[in-house]
Amino acid sequence: MKFRTSKRASLAAAWALTAAFASLPAVAAENAMPAPGTSKASSETAINATTRFVEASGIRFAYRRFGKPGQLPLVFNQHFTGTLDNWDPAVLDGLAKEREVIIFDNAGVGASTGEVPTTFAGMAKNAEIFIDALGLKKVDLLGFSIGGMIAQQITLDRPELIHKLILVGTAPRNMDAGGGEGHITPETASIFTAKYDPPENLWLKVFFTDSETSQAAGREFLKRYFSRTKNRDLPVSDKVAPAQMAAVGEWGAHPGERFAYLKDIKQPTLVVSGTHDNIVYTVNSLYLAQNLPNAKLILYPDASHGAWYQYNSDFVAQANSFLK
Amino acid sequence: MKFRTSKRASLAAAWALTAAFASLPAVAAENAMPAPGTSKASSETAINATTRFVEASGIRFAYRRFGKPGQLPLVFNQHFTGTLDNWDPAVLDGLAKEREVIIFDNAGVGASTGEVPTTFAGMAKNAEIFIDALGLKKVDLLGFSIGGMIAQQITLDRPELIHKLILVGTAPRNMDAGGGEGHITPETASIFTAKYDPPENLWLKVFFTDSETSQAAGREFLKRYFSRTKNRDLPVSDKVAPAQMAAVGEWGAHPGERFAYLKDIKQPTLVVSGTHDNIVYTVNSLYLAQNLPNAKLILYPDASHGAWYQYNSDFVAQANSFLK
Repeated sequence: MKFRTSKRASLAAAWALTAAFASLPAVAAENAMPAPGTSKASSETAINATTRFVEASGIRFAYRRFGKPGQLPLVFNQHFTGTLDNWDPAVLDGLAKEREVIIFDNAGVGASTGEVPTTFAGMAKNAEIFIDALGLKKVDLLGFSIGGMIAQQITLDRPELIHKLILVGTAPRNMDAGGGEGHITPETASIFTAKYDPPENLWLKVFFTDSETSQAAGREFLKRYFSRTKNRDLPVSDKVAPAQMAAVGEWGAHPGERFAYLKDIKQPTLVVSGTHDNIVYTVNSLYLAQNLPNAKLILYPDASHGAWYQYNSDFVAQANSFLK
Repeated sequence: MKFRTSKRASLAAAWALTAAFASLPAVAAENAMPAPGTSKASSETAINATTRFVEASGIRFAYRRFGKPGQLPLVFNQHFTGTLDNWDPAVLDGLAKEREVIIFDNAGVGASTGEVPTTFAGMAKNAEIFIDALGLKKVDLLGFSIGGMIAQQITLDRPELIHKLILVGTAPRNMDAGGGEGHITPETASIFTAKYDPPENLWLKVFFTDSETSQAAGREFLKRYFSRTKNRDLPVSDKVAPAQMAAVGEWGAHPGERFAYLKDIKQPTLVVSGTHDNIVYTVNSLYLAQNLPNAKLILYPDASHGAWYQYNSDFVAQANSFLK
């Protein structure tokens, strides 16, 4: 019901996202055979890693897998409308020095087939199908923004599958969204529906604060974001944003005692955000840290939703230490 | 006024503290000439560092200074009723590997002469007199609990003196104390007025959560706490607790726009607490991080007021990295 009233906003947001991607060379991802569990792609990096595919339960998942084999692989769950190309190469490559990193398009996103579910429970099930299809029995899990909501749900569904959890810029069910329609913060609604020239400047507003320091970090991020020039992912269809926004609404309205479900996530967890996250309010990271049984919290100064990109070097060190 | 109504509680707390210290060998600190700026005490550690004295403005300050000269010295501001002996040796020695650490009894505390002021502004002035008396022109500053309130005030008073700031288990003016009398949390009042056998078990309740893991860390802390067996500090007089509690009341009731003064603390700041600090509520660390212009926040899991003692190894690494 909430979703119905915010349909206009969500479509506008979808449009803004499509526009933001319009300047990118949107070529079909190359096809390659998956090599689950046997990746020796240590010479690959974020900007040249092969896009692979694996099919299960009727979904053909696009993914990339690279880094140093040995420790458990780290599986990434992406933010609102993000694809394989939206991760910060500095973070991926920094983490890939000590383990394999696995990024993927969930069902219906980018080059993956299938429908985007309208709940994080549905997206979590699809992510589990993907992880199972790679033959992995135990992984570390990272989720950013709505990806962190999906990561919580995966951990609840399949506790034996998840070793450690990293939750970045995300929120528990019943989060604080400032009373925003559909449990989306007013700032998010206004940032995603504005126009930007060039379009990718959207991310300067989504991920960084208005300070000169943070904006400068944002421009460095955009350079890294564009540094993969070949074999980029497909853009998201216009079905992605509305479905993901519906899922946010369902997550925010979840019934029951507030935050009680978090006690069932017993995995060591690292919670990370910026001191001034306008997209997913920072206080939600405090709620996570205070209600998860074993969570460490790090907040970065003068930073918004993209705090871990702004402080990518520190984040990589913290995460590598945490995952050891 | 607030203080008057809580006088009984504060005296009880003072009593509890005196009892907690009764089992310690309370000998007078040895006298030694101060050697400001020329310390070569790198062979000294927390458990054997000489207690020195320096006199200024009619106050004879007891202090210890040791560690590796080179970087700026780090000056520590102590918690409620704490003395030179209450710092965790693991933290002091870990930080002393990369700089000199300076711990001191503020006026009227332990072996220092003078009166304990009833405001943090007064205590800050005395701390500034002490730092000036050592001839130091620039220092890094650490404050724990009420010491963190004093450290904020020192930084406001003397911004040119302070390079970087570490605030542990502390709060801004107008903090959230759960509506507790005199701006002291209900848990603090109940923990400090209870009796413990042996008395030092008070610190297991003040600094650690009730979980087995945290209590085990607490017992390790108590071993370290008692590891200095010679030349311990003098116990605190019964004037210390009431004055310090009055200062908490004044700090909590400070008029004006909430947290606005924090924008004037421009130093890079590291804010540290536990996810479940019952003595100074954890949310106050979020307030600090969100209102200081340049503050990073770290919260440790399953940890209360003594989070940095429970995770001393991680804290030392984080602080050494931050102070670089």
